Amino acid sequence: MTEKSPGWVLTVKVSPPSLNDNTADADRLINELKSVLKTDYIDIDLSLLKNLPWRLRKWDYQVRCVCFKDRNRWKLVGLKGINDAVICAGIAIDLGTTRVVLRLINLETGEAINESAFDNPQIVIGPDILERIHFADDESGLYKINRLIIDGFNENITGLCGKSGVNIQDVFLLAVSGNTSMTHLFLGLPPNHIIREPYIPVVNTPNTVLAKDLGIAINDNARIFIFPNVGSYFGGDLISGIIFSKLYQQEDISILVDVGTNAEVVLGNKDWLVACAGAAGPALEGGVSKIGMTAKPGVIDRIVIEPELDIDLHTIDDLPPKGICGSGMIDMMAQLFLSGMVDIRGKFVAPKCRERLKESDGIRRIVLVPSDASATGKELSISQVDIDSLIRSKAAMYTILETIVRYVGITFDNLSMFYIAGTFGSFINPRSAITIGMIPDLSEETYHSLGNSSLGGATMVLTSQEALDAVEKIRDRITYLELNVNQEFMNRFSAAKFLPHTNPSLFPSVNIESIEKSN
Amino acid sequence: MTEKSPGWVLTVKVSPPSLNDNTADADRLINELKSVLKTDYIDIDLSLLKNLPWRLRKWDYQVRCVCFKDRNRWKLVGLKGINDAVICAGIAIDLGTTRVVLRLINLETGEAINESAFDNPQIVIGPDILERIHFADDESGLYKINRLIIDGFNENITGLCGKSGVNIQDVFLLAVSGNTSMTHLFLGLPPNHIIREPYIPVVNTPNTVLAKDLGIAINDNARIFIFPNVGSYFGGDLISGIIFSKLYQQEDISILVDVGTNAEVVLGNKDWLVACAGAAGPALEGGVSKIGMTAKPGVIDRIVIEPELDIDLHTIDDLPPKGICGSGMIDMMAQLFLSGMVDIRGKFVAPKCRERLKESDGIRRIVLVPSDASATGKELSISQVDIDSLIRSKAAMYTILETIVRYVGITFDNLSMFYIAGTFGSFINPRSAITIGMIPDLSEETYHSLGNSSLGGATMVLTSQEALDAVEKIRDRITYLELNVNQEFMNRFSAAKFLPHTNPSLFPSVNIESIEKSN
Repeated sequence: MTEKSPGWVLTVKVSPPSLNDNTADADRLINELKSVLKTDYIDIDLSLLKNLPWRLRKWDYQVRCVCFKDRNRWKLVGLKGINDAVICAGIAIDLGTTRVVLRLINLETGEAINESAFDNPQIVIGPDILERIHFADDESGLYKINRLIIDGFNENITGLCGKSGVNIQDVFLLAVSGNTSMTHLFLGLPPNHIIREPYIPVVNTPNTVLAKDLGIAINDNARIFIFPNVGSYFGGDLISGIIFSKLYQQEDISILVDVGTNAEVVLGNKDWLVACAGAAGPALEGGVSKIGMTAKPGVIDRIVIEPELDIDLHTIDDLPPKGICGSGMIDMMAQLFLSGMVDIRGKFVAPKCRERLKESDGIRRIVLVPSDASATGKELSISQVDIDSLIRSKAAMYTILETIVRYVGITFDNLSMFYIAGTFGSFINPRSAITIGMIPDLSEETYHSLGNSSLGGATMVLTSQEALDAVEKIRDRITYLELNVNQEFMNRFSAAKFLPHTNPSLFPSVNIESIEKSN
Repeated sequence: MTEKSPGWVLTVKVSPPSLNDNTADADRLINELKSVLKTDYIDIDLSLLKNLPWRLRKWDYQVRCVCFKDRNRWKLVGLKGINDAVICAGIAIDLGTTRVVLRLINLETGEAINESAFDNPQIVIGPDILERIHFADDESGLYKINRLIIDGFNENITGLCGKSGVNIQDVFLLAVSGNTSMTHLFLGLPPNHIIREPYIPVVNTPNTVLAKDLGIAINDNARIFIFPNVGSYFGGDLISGIIFSKLYQQEDISILVDVGTNAEVVLGNKDWLVACAGAAGPALEGGVSKIGMTAKPGVIDRIVIEPELDIDLHTIDDLPPKGICGSGMIDMMAQLFLSGMVDIRGKFVAPKCRERLKESDGIRRIVLVPSDASATGKELSISQVDIDSLIRSKAAMYTILETIVRYVGITFDNLSMFYIAGTFGSFINPRSAITIGMIPDLSEETYHSLGNSSLGGATMVLTSQEALDAVEKIRDRITYLELNVNQEFMNRFSAAKFLPHTNPSLFPSVNIESIEKSN
């Protein structure tokens, strides 16, 4: 008499007690759930027990049960009558350093109800993760920075539920995907050893946490699932991305790349997973160049340089330009190279740049937008320093990819899919990234942008038991490859510091000869 | 490098982190514990995580871990440095309706440190369990009666720890053994369905509870183990008694009897357990006769009637008599019968009673203590009504024993041990109980008083993993026999309402012929 929904809500009909069957109310319900969930143990919280007798009787022994697993142990999290019109809800959370995204989920149907996003309130402490960790070095700092994000959640969860007609008391599950440091600050755990040799998190695989223990104002019994991390520099958001990409289920070998301040890479298939992380340089995040910024309205995201060397810029929402994002930088770099305005070392070629090339304090720059055409009233330009930094970043990226692929004894040609995660992945033009030699010269169909895979994976955990089960297995299956910056790595890195590479045969699709001819 | 103590405290040496092994602090500790405990999962609370990094470093990665199991799932409950002189403590609790007993245990050595006891503060609501359940019918009543016992625990735990030099913050485990109603009132669970058909508890097998969730002021992470019950009338105190008696481990068949307002009986061996409970009459608890009371100083606990029919009374602590306890009643009944002062129906025999026999309002009574010799200044006497009530109780007891033994197809002769639990068991004279036909006519060596088996079982759970594991198995293995008060039961009951029985051949050791001759 029990029906199983696709998600975490089970509709159960319990046989009423009688003189012939005077099993206790809780055991009666648990026994029914046990047989449906095929498990020996289901935990039930004291606070749920207190209301159980009158609820069972009021609802005529027919209940919707929100159940969740804490590392293979089932918990009864919430109870609703079958005729209550209310939704049993969960919220998938991408807990980014900069931006936090919430997605409200109907736990019964698996449907996304609504979304909202807010800037991580910890930005007031510092936009950079390092500043925040230093701030949390003492107990009061940690308390303060933890309260910032908790208060941010409470405000935004209330807002999201309010506009969606969902009572916050009916939110029973949260799934939180963030990097290791963000997760620690969210849990109120001291992050100080993460950034100090030998780089030790407090915990890699936290248990699920009661919402009330974190001060999150949703249902008191609500459980918070936190994606486990592999280490200080390979966080739960990557595990979430692996879940979302389904890379771990596939026969063929794929690679998943998340680019931020660090590049985090996972390579593998259904049988094995190898991961590594390394500094690919903040240039790709738009953090280094003076005009670099994260993708938002008014930011340059695509560039084409016409044959006459006119620069054709595209900005997000077609607003007057105010800066350039990472994907815009890569586009620009590729276009500068293809147009001959920079050489294979990335140095400006004065005759090609013509009047766009300026110099002050001995540093050359190329003007993208003159001051009278920009949103800021200031000239938007890219200096030789910016370009050198970008080249180091792209070289690091390529070297990391090369290293991990060689480590498992394959070549790039063995990759069936190349997934790019995050906002960066949504905007990047793979053709440009190939042109500058940042990513390998594979067919464009191989490249696949995942969008917000961190949010996507968190959503899957709230809608599928299989996804949750996979999280733990994936975490335990990953071989983490410590990147040794040894002579061999440095040699590869040096070779990658050219456009596209010192060995152009690695990039046959980039027609280097025609470029050279045009110069 | 890890040493296992006999109890719930493990001394663990964790390898310090390094660049080659940057497993998180918590996972590092948990992995070590996992291999010692041979388990796949150990839960760790958020509040323990918060202090873990500096503790591990301060203690040079050598820790004492208090671990406990919540129905096969391990929990890390507490942490201490190996060089701290402090004791990791637990408290075994007999949660009686009338009296609560606490035993402070050193969890590392298993030794009992100290004990204390207090009257159950819920007595102010009513000495009787029914009154308390009615009082808890509404939420405010339940809250109030729950607070009474919780406050009582807090006061008495503080006192017990204080006089024993143990910090209450170093108390990590409680094991609570009580009947089903007491357990519900302790957990703050509504008990109202326990006493109403079809007699359904809220829960039979509660999870362990965090001390802070119940408001018990010991270590915040402390876990409270509550003995599971089999049903409304077969509580956790009986499971605790079974553990203590070791009946469930033996090859031979034994029986365990706990006598209170109800008689609760378990019969079995290492292969099977059958239990039943029935009203054996409050006469045995000293609750019915006007002068009946529970065993305490000044209460008559033994009686011998001399050949000249002088009544030789013994009181607890040899104080002037003020009442009579259950075991005293049984002694008296046996002596009245053996002296011929009552006949086989329990009726006073006037010529034998002589001047001790009085009558008022048509009810005869026999004076045990004249008013000038009692502590109360009032005559202490036993009426025909009291005796009739006692005979009904003893007959009920015998009938219950007969029924359960017949149910499994054996006879009393098959019993290797007859355990009697509780205070009643400590005082009862088996010879007297046999004489009146309350318990079967077995050799006196068969009878074994367990003392406070409820406290004893709770102590075992705090000192042995095997005992805890056994609890759940025992609970699930018990076949509960619902006593049908049908014609057959009533026939047996009627036959048992004689002294010792209508069929004296069942009691060969009671020399009925010599008694009859003396009359």
